Amino acid sequence: METGRKRDGAALIALDWGTSSLRGFLMDGAGAVLDQRANAHGIQNLPQPGLPGFEQAFAGLCGDWLAANASVPVVAGGMVGSAQGWAEAPYVACPADTSTLASRAIAVDSAAGVRILIAPGVTYAPPDAPPDILRGEEIQIAGVLADRPDWARESCMVLPGTHSKWVQIRDGRMTRFATYMTGEVFAVLTKHSILGRLMPTDVEAGAEARDAAFAEGVRAARASGPGDLTHQIFAARTLGITKRMAPELLKDFLSGLLIGHEMISGLARTGAALGGAAPGSGRPLLLIGDGALCRRYVQGLGLLGIEPTARLENTAPRGLFQFAIAAGLIAPPAGKDTHV
Amino acid sequence: METGRKRDGAALIALDWGTSSLRGFLMDGAGAVLDQRANAHGIQNLPQPGLPGFEQAFAGLCGDWLAANASVPVVAGGMVGSAQGWAEAPYVACPADTSTLASRAIAVDSAAGVRILIAPGVTYAPPDAPPDILRGEEIQIAGVLADRPDWARESCMVLPGTHSKWVQIRDGRMTRFATYMTGEVFAVLTKHSILGRLMPTDVEAGAEARDAAFAEGVRAARASGPGDLTHQIFAARTLGITKRMAPELLKDFLSGLLIGHEMISGLARTGAALGGAAPGSGRPLLLIGDGALCRRYVQGLGLLGIEPTARLENTAPRGLFQFAIAAGLIAPPAGKDTHV
Repeated sequence: METGRKRDGAALIALDWGTSSLRGFLMDGAGAVLDQRANAHGIQNLPQPGLPGFEQAFAGLCGDWLAANASVPVVAGGMVGSAQGWAEAPYVACPADTSTLASRAIAVDSAAGVRILIAPGVTYAPPDAPPDILRGEEIQIAGVLADRPDWARESCMVLPGTHSKWVQIRDGRMTRFATYMTGEVFAVLTKHSILGRLMPTDVEAGAEARDAAFAEGVRAARASGPGDLTHQIFAARTLGITKRMAPELLKDFLSGLLIGHEMISGLARTGAALGGAAPGSGRPLLLIGDGALCRRYVQGLGLLGIEPTARLENTAPRGLFQFAIAAGLIAPPAGKDTHV
Repeated sequence: METGRKRDGAALIALDWGTSSLRGFLMDGAGAVLDQRANAHGIQNLPQPGLPGFEQAFAGLCGDWLAANASVPVVAGGMVGSAQGWAEAPYVACPADTSTLASRAIAVDSAAGVRILIAPGVTYAPPDAPPDILRGEEIQIAGVLADRPDWARESCMVLPGTHSKWVQIRDGRMTRFATYMTGEVFAVLTKHSILGRLMPTDVEAGAEARDAAFAEGVRAARASGPGDLTHQIFAARTLGITKRMAPELLKDFLSGLLIGHEMISGLARTGAALGGAAPGSGRPLLLIGDGALCRRYVQGLGLLGIEPTARLENTAPRGLFQFAIAAGLIAPPAGKDTHV
């Protein structure tokens, strides 16, 4: 696709601007992606520090799109709206839907005079526990809510990652959610703790053996009681030292343990959100995110007797499109109920 | 105390040789410490790599003691007996007492012709879970078992630390135990995860506020269900971001969470080891280790309604002395039942 060429019908520039990456989408009035780009200029990795860095990253990614499509609106979601972002879009409280996001969005004007509407994050403050927060996932969720009224009515959306999110949906709104630091805990344990010392970096195990080690971790999690995690992870050392597990499989075992713990807690909260209904009782459970990681979650959930309803990838562009509609920046596509 | 002076009655040189430190004790025939020294020559920090490093560290710490006390026996415990140690003393299985340790010790002869008897670690292999291991703590425990037949008959010994150990004792033997990576998980999360970013290194909070934040973490742990830990630790970020807790207290909250999780799991296992008897039902619960850390455990246990029976420091020299007796290297003190 030629760079900078005038796109017939370009109606929106949408930015998914996270901590470590910046993704841009040029979309038409029906939400179709005409062009897309990505680079590593996440907010922790700007070409220069501070506001000039945001300006430079934005112009670098979108300059020719803007030149070729004057006055096309621009929206952004993700960490760009955090306290360390271009402009802070404070968290909105649950329950929140896409209209809530739009009504509490923050506009920033670039040096070149382009206005960017930034989506807020979402907070959930349970009565009996510390508050939780998310930022960026609300946009991915908005992308699903608009297109699937059945899932918007009631579902649990699971977004695996560095900080996994388990989000309860009812009547088109995020009603409550919980964050799990699964991916980050895995990273710091393998890179910085004694557990990583036994894990070779130059040996790749077969897929079947890796699945089996992962499953062993999930089964250990399934058998755990409250408080057991920091005990159970030590097995990623003892299984190696006692030669009960090949060193190149210890990572998969640890991954299964951590994901397994996340799942048993997330499923219990999902059940509680339903007033005690058992997980897997027919309410949709959706996995949203990267394919490889989601496949691990499918395997893990299967070991717990749960089959996810669907696995969805890259719903952020769709969500940014809905956010722009809800904000009145573009018209809803004709003949389409957008459910925002 | 003069260095190298002939000690009347020196009967044993005992080494507590861990990962990051080397401690030596010159003891008389009754187990009294005549002289002691410590340096940073743990097995991961030797003056030079490999065997010459062990030789040099040993001669550096004990050379004059050996010159002044020819033919005094030498014993050692801790990581010096691991696969990365001077000589590997393989793990012995539970149930194990001090005699078991002595019967499975490994002798190594130094270049200068001095024989050092190294204690083995201990392993516990439950029928339904991965094996667990400890090394070094068995010596600290041996120091308690010899002097307190009441605690040797039945007790739970808790050794807080980088890798905390909860050890069940019955009839003078370690019968089962569980490791918790509490201290190391705290260290990697505060140093290497996003949680550490909000924690200032240059602000010291008052003791009362720190205790309150620690207590809030313990109470959150007490309210937790299976799998909740990687969710709950995220509160060490959200409480800071939402300004519900001062940044300089987030570390104490996280510490309370992690220690709290260890305690609810450890107490449940202690109860299970007793066939379901409730923790705190009169069976001795002993804390062994560093004063400051043990005080945190006393506070945490108190929040769970448990008062530890005793808090013991530095029982390793006593344990090495008992190990030497059990190995026949020195005679039991006259008129004293050593219970080994």
